[in-house]
Amino acid sequence: MEVMNRYVTAKNYIEGSPKESDFEIKCSKIVLSAEPGSNDVVLKNLYVSIDPYQINRLKSYSSSQKTSSYVVVTIAPGEIISAYGVAKVVASENPLYKEDDLVVGTTRWADYSVLKASEYVLRKLNSFDMGFPLSHQIGVFGFSGLTAYAGLFEVGKPKKGERVFVSAASGSVGHLVGQYAKLSGCYVVGCAGSKEKVGLLKEKLGFDDAFNYKDEPNLESTLKKYFPDGIDIYFDNVGGKMLEAALANMNNFGRVVSCGTISEYTDPNNKVPPNINMHDMIYKRIMIQGFLATDFLTIFPDFLSATMNLIRLGRIKTLEDISTGLESIPQAFVGLFHGAKANAGKKIVTLVEN
Amino acid sequence: MEVMNRYVTAKNYIEGSPKESDFEIKCSKIVLSAEPGSNDVVLKNLYVSIDPYQINRLKSYSSSQKTSSYVVVTIAPGEIISAYGVAKVVASENPLYKEDDLVVGTTRWADYSVLKASEYVLRKLNSFDMGFPLSHQIGVFGFSGLTAYAGLFEVGKPKKGERVFVSAASGSVGHLVGQYAKLSGCYVVGCAGSKEKVGLLKEKLGFDDAFNYKDEPNLESTLKKYFPDGIDIYFDNVGGKMLEAALANMNNFGRVVSCGTISEYTDPNNKVPPNINMHDMIYKRIMIQGFLATDFLTIFPDFLSATMNLIRLGRIKTLEDISTGLESIPQAFVGLFHGAKANAGKKIVTLVEN
Repeated sequence: MEVMNRYVTAKNYIEGSPKESDFEIKCSKIVLSAEPGSNDVVLKNLYVSIDPYQINRLKSYSSSQKTSSYVVVTIAPGEIISAYGVAKVVASENPLYKEDDLVVGTTRWADYSVLKASEYVLRKLNSFDMGFPLSHQIGVFGFSGLTAYAGLFEVGKPKKGERVFVSAASGSVGHLVGQYAKLSGCYVVGCAGSKEKVGLLKEKLGFDDAFNYKDEPNLESTLKKYFPDGIDIYFDNVGGKMLEAALANMNNFGRVVSCGTISEYTDPNNKVPPNINMHDMIYKRIMIQGFLATDFLTIFPDFLSATMNLIRLGRIKTLEDISTGLESIPQAFVGLFHGAKANAGKKIVTLVEN
Repeated sequence: MEVMNRYVTAKNYIEGSPKESDFEIKCSKIVLSAEPGSNDVVLKNLYVSIDPYQINRLKSYSSSQKTSSYVVVTIAPGEIISAYGVAKVVASENPLYKEDDLVVGTTRWADYSVLKASEYVLRKLNSFDMGFPLSHQIGVFGFSGLTAYAGLFEVGKPKKGERVFVSAASGSVGHLVGQYAKLSGCYVVGCAGSKEKVGLLKEKLGFDDAFNYKDEPNLESTLKKYFPDGIDIYFDNVGGKMLEAALANMNNFGRVVSCGTISEYTDPNNKVPPNINMHDMIYKRIMIQGFLATDFLTIFPDFLSATMNLIRLGRIKTLEDISTGLESIPQAFVGLFHGAKANAGKKIVTLVEN
C-alpha cells in the first residue's frame, strides 16, 4: 500500500532558542512494505518523545566542535527527525517483529517510520507493559526514566539522609529524580519556573521543598536558605548560574550529576559557561560528572522492573504532558525551552487518531 | 634545659603572591622537657617540608568563606607555622617515643617543636626507612608522594595505553605522577615553566614529552599538538586557563584529577576561575574530582611499600631541592610560586647543622 507520509522537519539549522517557524511539515509518498529478506520494518507511530537534547542535533556545528572527540549526529534541514517512540508494526521482514506488534524504540517525528535494518533498536512490548499507558514507555519507562535512575543511583550514589537539589525539577527527568531520591531517604528540594510547578513538586510529588527560581535574584543565598546544612548531591539539568550557586553550597564530598544545560542552550543572559572555583572543588573534594543514559543500557532491565513496581505501588507518580497530532510537534518542542509556560513533566505527542 | 627557639612566622596575612618580606624570624625561650604524665613530646627538627598549600593557611578569609562547609585552619600572623617534617625526639612523655628516636610527621618551621598530646601525628622511623635519605620521608614517602599516588590511582584510575597530561610536572607531586603513570603503561606529557625543567622531565624522568607553557600562547592548540588523540587523564596542579585548555582536549570518559590551583593562587592574570563547558562535560562524560591526600591515609602502607620498592629498583627517581638553615625557609616558600626560577622537585629545608 502506498500512502502520503507526513513528517516534521527543520527549515534551517537552529540558533539560540528554537521557534515554531524553524519547523515545517512535509509529505512524501511511501510504500508500507519492507524489502523482502532485508530485516527492514515499517512502523505506524503512536507516541513520540519530545526531548530538549534534540536541539543539539538540529544545530550547525563549527569545525572545531566536529573534530572534538565526541560527535553529535546532526540532522540537516529537510531531513526526517528521529525520536524515541511507541509504534505498531505494519510491515516487517525481521522475524522478531510481526504485523500489529507494539514496539518501543526508534521512530520518527512522522506518521510512519520506514526503518532499514541498521537504523533501529526496538523492544517488543509484552504483557507486563500492557498494564500501563503506552505513553509511559517513552517517559518513565524510557530514556527519561533511565536518565533519572542511572544519573541518581550510578553517578550521584545517594546515601540515606543526604540532601539533594534538583533543577528543572518538574521536567521529564527532574520529577523522577526527586522521587527516587525521596525513596532513598534523602531530603529533596527542587526548583522550577512557575508557581504551579512548585506546588506540584511539593503537593503531588512529595518533594520536601521547592522554589521558583524566577523569583530569586540571588540563587546562592536562596540555596543557602533551603539547604542550611549544605547540598550533598546536585542533579543538574540546567548548567550556568544555577550550577555556580549550587557549587557554592556543596558539602564536602558533594557530587554534581551533570545531566543537562538547558539554561545554556537558549538563555542569552546565560551564555557564559559557569565559573568553577577549583579551590573549593579540591578542599571540599567535589566531583562533577557528566553522563549520558545510553552508557547505562546494561542496567535497563533492573531500572525497568524496579520502576514498574514503584509505579504500580503508587510510590512514584509520573507527569506527562501529551499533545495530539503531528502538527503539534513543533509547538511541543519549542515549549520545552520556556520553563514558565510549558506544562510539567514528560512532553509527548500522540499520533493516535481518536 | 632551656634554649632559645628560633621560628618562622608571618608578619601579616598574605595577599596574592607571597614575598620574603611577609615573613620574619623570631625567638622564644623554651624548656626542652615534656610535662610529666602529659604524652607531650619535644622534637629537634631536622628536615621541614615547604608546600604550596601552606599559603591557604596564611591568608585571611572572608566571613562567607568561613561559613562554608570546609574550614581551612588558618595560622595568624605571629603564630608558629606547622609543617610536615623529620625530627629527632629530645624529650617525650609518650611511651611510644623515646629520646633520640627519629620520627616523621608534625613539626614546625622552627628549631624545636614542643607538641601537646592533641597536636601531633608522628610515625617512628624503622630500619626499612634507614635505607633512604631522611629527606625522602617528607617528599616521595610523605604527602607529596601520597598525593601523587592516591590522586593518580584512586581518582584518575589509569588504564594501560591511556594518555595522561600533568601540569606543574616538575613539581613535588607532578614529577611522581608522571612516573607512576609511565609505570602503568600510559603515554605521559608534562608541562613546566622553564627549558631546564622540560629537559629534566624528558631526559631524567622518562616522560614521553614535555613543554614549557610560557612559550605557548595558545594552550588549547598546544595540547592538541601533544595529544592528537586526546587526553584521558589530566592531573591538574594549576587550575585556571590550563584546565580550560585540557578540558577542550579531553576524550570521552576523561578524568580531571584536581590536585592544586597554583596558577590561581598568585597569578593576577589568572584570577578568573576557569569557565567549564558543561555541554562538553556531558557529551564527553567527563569527571572532575577534587581530592586531598589526607582522605587516603588508609592506603598509606600500600603506597609506602610500593614506592620504597620502586625507588630501590630505580624505577622511580625523585627530585629534591634542599636548602639549608631556618633562615632560608621564607625564600624557599616564596620560590614555590615562581615556576621559572624555582628549582625542580620537592622543596625541603634542612635544619641539620653541618
